[in-house]
Amino acid sequence: MAHIKLEEEVPGIRSLVLFRPETGQYLYELVQILLRGESTLSEAERELIATYVSQRNECIFCRDSHAAASKCLYGDEKSIVDEVLHDMNEAGLSEKMKTLLTIAGKVQVSGKEVSDEDIATARNNDATDREIHDTVLIAATFSMFNRYVDGLATLTPTDPAVYEEMGKRMAGGYSFPQQTK
Amino acid sequence: MAHIKLEEEVPGIRSLVLFRPETGQYLYELVQILLRGESTLSEAERELIATYVSQRNECIFCRDSHAAASKCLYGDEKSIVDEVLHDMNEAGLSEKMKTLLTIAGKVQVSGKEVSDEDIATARNNDATDREIHDTVLIAATFSMFNRYVDGLATLTPTDPAVYEEMGKRMAGGYSFPQQTK
Repeated sequence: MAHIKLEEEVPGIRSLVLFRPETGQYLYELVQILLRGESTLSEAERELIATYVSQRNECIFCRDSHAAASKCLYGDEKSIVDEVLHDMNEAGLSEKMKTLLTIAGKVQVSGKEVSDEDIATARNNDATDREIHDTVLIAATFSMFNRYVDGLATLTPTDPAVYEEMGKRMAGGYSFPQQTK
Repeated sequence: MAHIKLEEEVPGIRSLVLFRPETGQYLYELVQILLRGESTLSEAERELIATYVSQRNECIFCRDSHAAASKCLYGDEKSIVDEVLHDMNEAGLSEKMKTLLTIAGKVQVSGKEVSDEDIATARNNDATDREIHDTVLIAATFSMFNRYVDGLATLTPTDPAVYEEMGKRMAGGYSFPQQTK
């Protein structure tokens, strides 16, 4: 049961932004621009960074919903998401994406973990300043969402079909929920 | 030196939102509503939660700037901020604030650390659902800002007078920077 009185049967972040729309609206605006706005990282790749950080924070709701969104966006290449969840270093990803996920993994621990060497390695694999910036901000943002969702013990569905449905909706973009579920 | 090319001599979060205003504008909107919007927690208390979490994340820029803002808002009671930074449990705070800071400290580690007992203790000390919610969201939000600011190695001033000046400005509210410094 959630730590505060939230609308029943509404899962995860959705229950929280409905409880407090004044802050929730900006959380949705932020994630929409960060994961769906113009970028040289694909939407699937950005969802993968969110998924990887959420897994490291053991936030099941965020991990499974963003994994589903990433798979939906990867389409035929969706097995990449499971490969990253199993072992990022062995996944069939570009070297650039591996260096960015390495940075995201450090940010999940602490911003101070990111070294000059990590950045140089990403640059040597053609990562731009904007890509490095967005990777750090996505990792920081999901370090927030994971804590928010779990810190208030929100509802975490267990049925994979629920996440698959969520992933399809999320693939289309993030807008403040009009419906509750 | 910062990990990406930011405007020179511009410190901390300010340099990042100027680099990427598309995301920065929502970060400012979020923090304005969370720390300055209508609440039964005072602005000084909310800044104190931000300070406490930033100290635990060892983010000097966020700790010292929000400590300065909190002191400015506490006015005559500003020594409370130093007491919390020294030892929260021994500080001259209400029991309610201690229970909320305990929850914030758990969120800094992981959302999963917050227990039913932590919530019950907060409630027994008259914390409302909205206060518990906002405490968790402030702690989660600063777990994001701390990682963002340090993950890109932004400029951290060392002169206490710089933070005092920042604190005064921040006490007046958060709006997207028109000036750069």
